[in-house]
Amino acid sequence: MATINDNYLKLKAGYLFPEIARRVSAFSEANPEASIIKLGIGDVTEPLPAACCEAMKQAVEEMSDRATFKGYGPEQGYLWLREKIATQDFQARGCDIDASEIFISDGSKCDTGNILDIFGHDNTIAVTDPVYPVYVDTNVMAGNTGSAQDGGTYEGLVYLPISADNDFTAALPQQKVDLIYLCFPNNPTGAVATRDYLKTWVDYARANDAIIFFDAAYEAFITDPDIPHSIYEIEGARDCAIEFRSFSKNAGFTGTRCALTVVPKSLKAKANDGSTVDLWPLWNRRQSTKFNGVSYVVQRGAEAVYSDAGQAQVKQLISFYLENARIIREKLTAAGFTVYGGVNAPYIWLKTPDNLSSWDFFDKLLHNCHVVGTPGAGFGAAGEGYFRISAFNSRANVDDAMRRITEKFKA
Amino acid sequence: MATINDNYLKLKAGYLFPEIARRVSAFSEANPEASIIKLGIGDVTEPLPAACCEAMKQAVEEMSDRATFKGYGPEQGYLWLREKIATQDFQARGCDIDASEIFISDGSKCDTGNILDIFGHDNTIAVTDPVYPVYVDTNVMAGNTGSAQDGGTYEGLVYLPISADNDFTAALPQQKVDLIYLCFPNNPTGAVATRDYLKTWVDYARANDAIIFFDAAYEAFITDPDIPHSIYEIEGARDCAIEFRSFSKNAGFTGTRCALTVVPKSLKAKANDGSTVDLWPLWNRRQSTKFNGVSYVVQRGAEAVYSDAGQAQVKQLISFYLENARIIREKLTAAGFTVYGGVNAPYIWLKTPDNLSSWDFFDKLLHNCHVVGTPGAGFGAAGEGYFRISAFNSRANVDDAMRRITEKFKA
Repeated sequence: MATINDNYLKLKAGYLFPEIARRVSAFSEANPEASIIKLGIGDVTEPLPAACCEAMKQAVEEMSDRATFKGYGPEQGYLWLREKIATQDFQARGCDIDASEIFISDGSKCDTGNILDIFGHDNTIAVTDPVYPVYVDTNVMAGNTGSAQDGGTYEGLVYLPISADNDFTAALPQQKVDLIYLCFPNNPTGAVATRDYLKTWVDYARANDAIIFFDAAYEAFITDPDIPHSIYEIEGARDCAIEFRSFSKNAGFTGTRCALTVVPKSLKAKANDGSTVDLWPLWNRRQSTKFNGVSYVVQRGAEAVYSDAGQAQVKQLISFYLENARIIREKLTAAGFTVYGGVNAPYIWLKTPDNLSSWDFFDKLLHNCHVVGTPGAGFGAAGEGYFRISAFNSRANVDDAMRRITEKFKA
Repeated sequence: MATINDNYLKLKAGYLFPEIARRVSAFSEANPEASIIKLGIGDVTEPLPAACCEAMKQAVEEMSDRATFKGYGPEQGYLWLREKIATQDFQARGCDIDASEIFISDGSKCDTGNILDIFGHDNTIAVTDPVYPVYVDTNVMAGNTGSAQDGGTYEGLVYLPISADNDFTAALPQQKVDLIYLCFPNNPTGAVATRDYLKTWVDYARANDAIIFFDAAYEAFITDPDIPHSIYEIEGARDCAIEFRSFSKNAGFTGTRCALTVVPKSLKAKANDGSTVDLWPLWNRRQSTKFNGVSYVVQRGAEAVYSDAGQAQVKQLISFYLENARIIREKLTAAGFTVYGGVNAPYIWLKTPDNLSSWDFFDKLLHNCHVVGTPGAGFGAAGEGYFRISAFNSRANVDDAMRRITEKFKA
């Protein structure tokens, strides 16, 4: 009989967000009159920038005419898009990143999982705790961990706790690790990394021949000019870091699907025979063989983000969500909550009141306020006692949610 | 130091189509005046159906308005699309397939690779020879094979030769296998499978608890009413087959990106402890964790394929390419070539003349006729001495290519 990948059986429960959806749907069916405000999953709510829509319509038009029709595109993405990204997102910030090192994909979630395809199973892997669950689950599925343990961790992974005690910035691991996931601005805590802090990681990675997976999906929310947007702003990062970016959170592409992964040509890792191998050709081969590029229409939409109009519209979107974040911080603080994040990030990370467990607070918020957030425990054992509120919603919904929460939980 | 997935180092040369692109580009640079006609890679040339374009423009319009904007969709695809597929592609042909068993993805190439994620590494895997290279390469990358051997095969895979001797329909394997790749209408040979022939495979798979990966990407080209379009037209296939379909070749979505994979809930395989496990939840978990669904705009385009207008337009596209195939068959036969396929399929499979190797014939065709095809050896050792010509092009280009070939190679 055909055998399955047994590693899947190690996975605990469902993936976080489907579980939230299940509870919300059950509540909603039992209470059809309840008007539920969703500040849970980090999904955007505002329309696509007009520049993107115009570009996409134009692209559909091209697809309807034989002379301008586009079939298979390059698996790596169209060069006109990769060049704009290289120039405006990286070179303009002093990062030495070339268009050929940028791979367009249909999502950072996909790529942070897929990247493991090109690495061995014997690497020691570090994640923060709490952490975006996809990093952990994809390692479990790939067979890079042992079994699930009590308390929600997996054997074999190195967990780096982040909490208010260390300003949500993990200390360097005590032991030598080979692969390190970092996400800044952080999901779920909303913390940011200073230049000096990132430099300690780049120095660590170079000293230990480790590779950093740097998830910069939320970089557009950085307003503080001293905070780096890319890990490549740190000297030496070209030799030790892969960066993931997305159009989901800057231009609202969560339902449109476009992202990018930067694999510098200078990155190296080790083969079984001890020789040193370039990573770029491996990722290029992976993408050429297992991927067929992103929809032409969508790539044209992403390109429009880099036009003057697109840049202005994205800035407006970000400002709008950041003002939501400011309101959430202010109202929750006034209601007596202890809150973190939400300044250079769209997430507010709060301590649950009365030492409630994070799922109990989830249920209480859903049942009493009809507001959905994300339980901290869903992001890892050290997320217990915390709760994530997302700033992605309309102003009216944010105001309404804060009014409901303030009423029920006033200090 | 971080280690790589050493299996990548077993891969021989580049993936077939990039290698073709490289040779064409080199020739083109050296001969900028040459007008090259591409009948190589199976890429469509005609515009998207008008119904699809209209639906996509409408969807972009929805994305520009907060009230109709769509963020993250279901990872499995929107139900309105999955239901139309279930009804019109499967239930209308008597297949007992439910919408919940259909997973929308961005490509069959991706899915035929990704499906290996949920299977163990100890399965015995059968492929035909020649075969679509992605099936083999993704198994190499996943560590399901040994090393490359002289003659272009990989240790550990079971190769089932297909040739004119067996009407390009592989015999059942002599040994017990666990996973079997079948593709009908076949890429690259253009052969089709009768109901009786498919039944021998379904019976084999059920008797041996094997899983068939059935690639039906070219089903739209079947005009013979006796040829099944889906493996689920065969009794018992629900218990042993996963089917891959694509909008690339029926509606010209090669650059638009939409496909689907059918994983029946009745499929089972074995865990390490000997217990039997359902495959559907594993694939659902894989897609939920490593994928974020297909662009809303693209799914609306795919849905339009199922409208009356869409169906009529797709039929017209298919008839157009099949008439190209008929012309190619006729002209090549008249020029003295021995040809196969091209009746219920968009590919013509020819014997190279004068016992030329397939890459030599590729170069000769490129240099003498400025026509690009695909060397049979690129599809496996047993493809040596054969050559694939695709019917995907304009009528003018097909006519011109046939004129050039007839002049240079007349019998």
